[in-house]
Amino acid sequence: MNVSVGIIVGSKSDLAYAGEAIAVLEQLGIGHELRILSAHRTPAALEGYVAAAPERGIRTFITMAGHAAALPGVVAARTTLPDIGVPLPTSDLRGEDALFAIVQMPPGIPVATMAIGVPGARNAAWFAAAILGLADESVTAAIEEGRARMTRSVLQDDEGAGATI
Amino acid sequence: MNVSVGIIVGSKSDLAYAGEAIAVLEQLGIGHELRILSAHRTPAALEGYVAAAPERGIRTFITMAGHAAALPGVVAARTTLPDIGVPLPTSDLRGEDALFAIVQMPPGIPVATMAIGVPGARNAAWFAAAILGLADESVTAAIEEGRARMTRSVLQDDEGAGATI
Amino acid sequence: MNVSVGIIVGSKSDLAYAGEAIAVLEQLGIGHELRILSAHRTPAALEGYVAAAPERGIRTFITMAGHAAALPGVVAARTTLPDIGVPLPTSDLRGEDALFAIVQMPPGIPVATMAIGVPGARNAAWFAAAILGLADESVTAAIEEGRARMTRSVLQDDEGAGATI
Amino acid sequence: MNVSVGIIVGSKSDLAYAGEAIAVLEQLGIGHELRILSAHRTPAALEGYVAAAPERGIRTFITMAGHAAALPGVVAARTTLPDIGVPLPTSDLRGEDALFAIVQMPPGIPVATMAIGVPGARNAAWFAAAILGLADESVTAAIEEGRARMTRSVLQDDEGAGATI
Amino acid sequence: MNVSVGIIVGSKSDLAYAGEAIAVLEQLGIGHELRILSAHRTPAALEGYVAAAPERGIRTFITMAGHAAALPGVVAARTTLPDIGVPLPTSDLRGEDALFAIVQMPPGIPVATMAIGVPGARNAAWFAAAILGLADESVTAAIEEGRARMTRSVLQDDEGAGATI
Amino acid sequence: MNVSVGIIVGSKSDLAYAGEAIAVLEQLGIGHELRILSAHRTPAALEGYVAAAPERGIRTFITMAGHAAALPGVVAARTTLPDIGVPLPTSDLRGEDALFAIVQMPPGIPVATMAIGVPGARNAAWFAAAILGLADESVTAAIEEGRARMTRSVLQDDEGAGATI
Amino acid sequence: MNVSVGIIVGSKSDLAYAGEAIAVLEQLGIGHELRILSAHRTPAALEGYVAAAPERGIRTFITMAGHAAALPGVVAARTTLPDIGVPLPTSDLRGEDALFAIVQMPPGIPVATMAIGVPGARNAAWFAAAILGLADESVTAAIEEGRARMTRSVLQDDEGAGATI
Amino acid sequence: MNVSVGIIVGSKSDLAYAGEAIAVLEQLGIGHELRILSAHRTPAALEGYVAAAPERGIRTFITMAGHAAALPGVVAARTTLPDIGVPLPTSDLRGEDALFAIVQMPPGIPVATMAIGVPGARNAAWFAAAILGLADESVTAAIEEGRARMTRSVLQDDEGAGATI
Repeated sequence: MNVSVGIIVGSKSDLAYAGEAIAVLEQLGIGHELRILSAHRTPAALEGYVAAAPERGIRTFITMAGHAAALPGVVAARTTLPDIGVPLPTSDLRGEDALFAIVQMPPGIPVATMAIGVPGARNAAWFAAAILGLADESVTAAIEEGRARMTRSVLQDDEGAGATI
Repeated sequence: MNVSVGIIVGSKSDLAYAGEAIAVLEQLGIGHELRILSAHRTPAALEGYVAAAPERGIRTFITMAGHAAALPGVVAARTTLPDIGVPLPTSDLRGEDALFAIVQMPPGIPVATMAIGVPGARNAAWFAAAILGLADESVTAAIEEGRARMTRSVLQDDEGAGATI
Repeated sequence: MNVSVGIIVGSKSDLAYAGEAIAVLEQLGIGHELRILSAHRTPAALEGYVAAAPERGIRTFITMAGHAAALPGVVAARTTLPDIGVPLPTSDLRGEDALFAIVQMPPGIPVATMAIGVPGARNAAWFAAAILGLADESVTAAIEEGRARMTRSVLQDDEGAGATI
Repeated sequence: MNVSVGIIVGSKSDLAYAGEAIAVLEQLGIGHELRILSAHRTPAALEGYVAAAPERGIRTFITMAGHAAALPGVVAARTTLPDIGVPLPTSDLRGEDALFAIVQMPPGIPVATMAIGVPGARNAAWFAAAILGLADESVTAAIEEGRARMTRSVLQDDEGAGATI
Repeated sequence: MNVSVGIIVGSKSDLAYAGEAIAVLEQLGIGHELRILSAHRTPAALEGYVAAAPERGIRTFITMAGHAAALPGVVAARTTLPDIGVPLPTSDLRGEDALFAIVQMPPGIPVATMAIGVPGARNAAWFAAAILGLADESVTAAIEEGRARMTRSVLQDDEGAGATI
Repeated sequence: MNVSVGIIVGSKSDLAYAGEAIAVLEQLGIGHELRILSAHRTPAALEGYVAAAPERGIRTFITMAGHAAALPGVVAARTTLPDIGVPLPTSDLRGEDALFAIVQMPPGIPVATMAIGVPGARNAAWFAAAILGLADESVTAAIEEGRARMTRSVLQDDEGAGATI
Repeated sequence: MNVSVGIIVGSKSDLAYAGEAIAVLEQLGIGHELRILSAHRTPAALEGYVAAAPERGIRTFITMAGHAAALPGVVAARTTLPDIGVPLPTSDLRGEDALFAIVQMPPGIPVATMAIGVPGARNAAWFAAAILGLADESVTAAIEEGRARMTRSVLQDDEGAGATI
Repeated sequence: MNVSVGIIVGSKSDLAYAGEAIAVLEQLGIGHELRILSAHRTPAALEGYVAAAPERGIRTFITMAGHAAALPGVVAARTTLPDIGVPLPTSDLRGEDALFAIVQMPPGIPVATMAIGVPGARNAAWFAAAILGLADESVTAAIEEGRARMTRSVLQDDEGAGATI
């Protein structure tokens, strides 16, 4: 399985969120790699990784950051690959800062912004699958299977709902 | 040029934002079609369009909505194609309502959220290009050309900066 | 006692809030049923339930959701029955996202929005009673009795207030 | 046509919003009356009107207020009839103050909160119709007809969409 | 010591905040009484207390409420005495709802709004003292003594600051 | 008529708001004076004025400020007289900044905060009257007369309401 | 006069704000230069300018940006010189997005954040003067003179205050 | 090592944040002193300290405050030295109040605002170093060394990233 998604977090303390995305990617059978690279602290290494990513087979980035959250935008400015950004709730403003810093990108440099925190980390993987599925039917099949599983799970919960309360 | 992007707005009053996306898509040479379909007022027609879109060659949706902004999520729940959402500033809350209603999607049903209003409408087109560019080098070339043009424009403005003030 | 209120939550994890509404409905003697159905994950089952509800005697819906919270609006778009929505504080934005996503509905598709979280879940039941009381004097009597009980409880607390501090 | 909806605004300056609700009520064939009564400035007259409303045939209140917006809650505390509240964007906080002051009611005293401003004013009428329709099939028929008209209008706009941009 | 401040909270669950105000009032030698009365649940008892307060010697109200927080405004509308309001952080919106519902009063019915939660509860007592001090030099002296104590306390902490870290 | 209210704004550009307070004070027959003094630009003159105010007969301050809005707190820290603060909507944050900077005072240094902008400016005068009325029955009578006028005005508007729409 | 402040805006449309800073710098006798360079569109030119700035005599940067506002942080990460950031109100969120994106920088990469919009643009110049004044007494003298002028202006306005209203 | 940074907090309860700044200053070899002085409770002592600071060798202030947070602005108004402000998340509004009260300073009285809470406390020290480094190459060297250490730390974490999840 070749690596097609490059996940980047800016700090070791954000790894738990990366883990949420990775769990979904693995469930969907999508190859990935994880890097810790900072827009502000390791700009050169970050730029080097982004520049070299296409040749390594990377087709989509997932970038996660809290606070001022420049990482997703810096990656987007240096690639023509799709860049999926996840705002993390790691500051006293609970991720509203990171959401604004990621979603409000200027024209020409888009970042596909997901929900704050864990739901967003998981959806970054689901959205990467939607992109990769355009060229790989097995990924689309995995999305459909995953959704069918979610549907069955809700319906099963629904059957037990009367008894739960 | 085949139609590969389906743009959906929920109301005639949102057409100006769609126009911003269309202008960018045309600059990038990407075929597109525009529909007015409402998650709440024409759910059947909306579902019909989304279901039939893949056979018609649609590979990515751009969905725009203000207020409670259910349209992007309803489309995302009914397709495995990438869905790019644009929150519109058409209520008294200036788009913060639509932003929250679009970006905070639950796991499994992602919407790639762009900035509020005009910058987001433009970036929806740029991000659609990033996705389509994975399978079409001419689109990637158009992105690179567009970015080079933006770069030249900034540098040209920079040359005149001293004289401007 | 016939079932006249249909409560819908989108996920098993929201059941505790449904329980708050149910406790009030039972205190007021109002028949109800509880379903777990998701606007995004089980749209067909949800639409089926909403369409069939009138024949089953359902006269009012109570719908609860967190995050992007499309459930209340999707139900409202498919019924002419009153739909009471409760925003849940289950995301990092503590329910402000769900509040905006539920209350800011476009004209023609209203959702009667209650407070965020537990107070809103309880009030959804009280408001359902206000609606049903228009055609059933025993429900109005139960509301009046419930309010009288609240009044007595506050007055009793008031008597002991001096000693409490 | 008997009067079944009592609309209350707290000030002459809010009458334009009442007019939006009235236009919808008339389209749906629902009898109504309009009062200017203030929770803070004419509490006695307000309480008198609310107390006498049931005998006059009023079955649902629509209450509109901006700023601290106590009117809807004060009405709700004095009636067992359904009370539909509309937050108005008449302060420097654009209605976010009124939204919080109306929607965050404590348990037992619910106010069915609509969107801020014009969309909310219109939806107050649509929601009143949903309530009245439970006992009057002609109102339900009018809702269905109104929705069908909205659907046709969107579909008509959709046909012209290609030519519009 | 005659009772000159009437403290009102709407619910037993808010008593801890009342206790913060009472501790300051006692430190300043100001007579007070505590009532639990609700704008929505015991409107008659509340109005009765407010109407009778002047004859009982009450010269200033302190009113505390969370959520939609109508209590301070309802009191203000029924008295010409000064009314000091404290927004409580008892909802999922942490008191921002109560702040807006208390501070945004319409012209003619002012509520003197204090900070959210504990600091506001304490300051309600300090502000009541500022009012009462206009007619009672012993209260002004107590304020001055209390402030001098705070000043000494800060200066004492300042002396130890170097050693603390 | 002796001067009993000292109004302070920090800048000439805030004078229109002071005018709103003055109009109410004059209607209520309360003597006042207006000063332009800045917490940051003229701290010495401000402190001088505040210190000398009691001897001049000032019994209450009204302080108005936008942006970081330190003026009300600086005055409060230097007086034991009541200090009524009005947050002004003069920045890009429309007064939410000034509201937080005025209302969130620490214990011991209270500022009686009014609504943002014009309604708050007017209510500062009404609240000053509530304070002064404790020692001057003619002021209380003027409040009661003013309120009666407001009541009559609403009732008169109410009579014409049916014809207005 | 040597150039010691480098002002950078990301777009020609932000030049009016740069002009506000320049007017203050000129009043204070501080040499400056103005560049239009974008973190996202001309990263190489931006990095080049920042790297070469010290040799050119630049001792402090002023960076201005709206929306996601990455410019100030990108500059800060590439210099050890002080970097003063100004959030611009150029989006539908009125600068709250830019404020969060600039002020919430992670440890080690500080940006000295000023107020949103015009006041912040002016204060960036005043703060640059505070820094430069540490090594240049003429700048400190200019600050003191500027402040004295502001003080005189307020006092002069104060003298005319009574007549203004 | 001479003392060049004066850190001021308004209360003993804020000392932990001061400790974060001090740890960074010591790592960078910058002399400092810590004072507890309140804008509202010890204005005279605060003004005295600020006025005497230059002769004592202080070249930059770091000021920290929560709630209405007047301290940084009061210091800025009384010095021409750079003043770095840190908003503390010590109220129910989690520091958004302090952020607005510090960053929104009026023209002429700038405060260099850092992030809310711990990251801001650390960055206040880093920014003080950036200022002092203009006149002291050993400080600039310490910044560069500190940044290199951060870079190495991220790169080291990056090497272990694959194994971590």
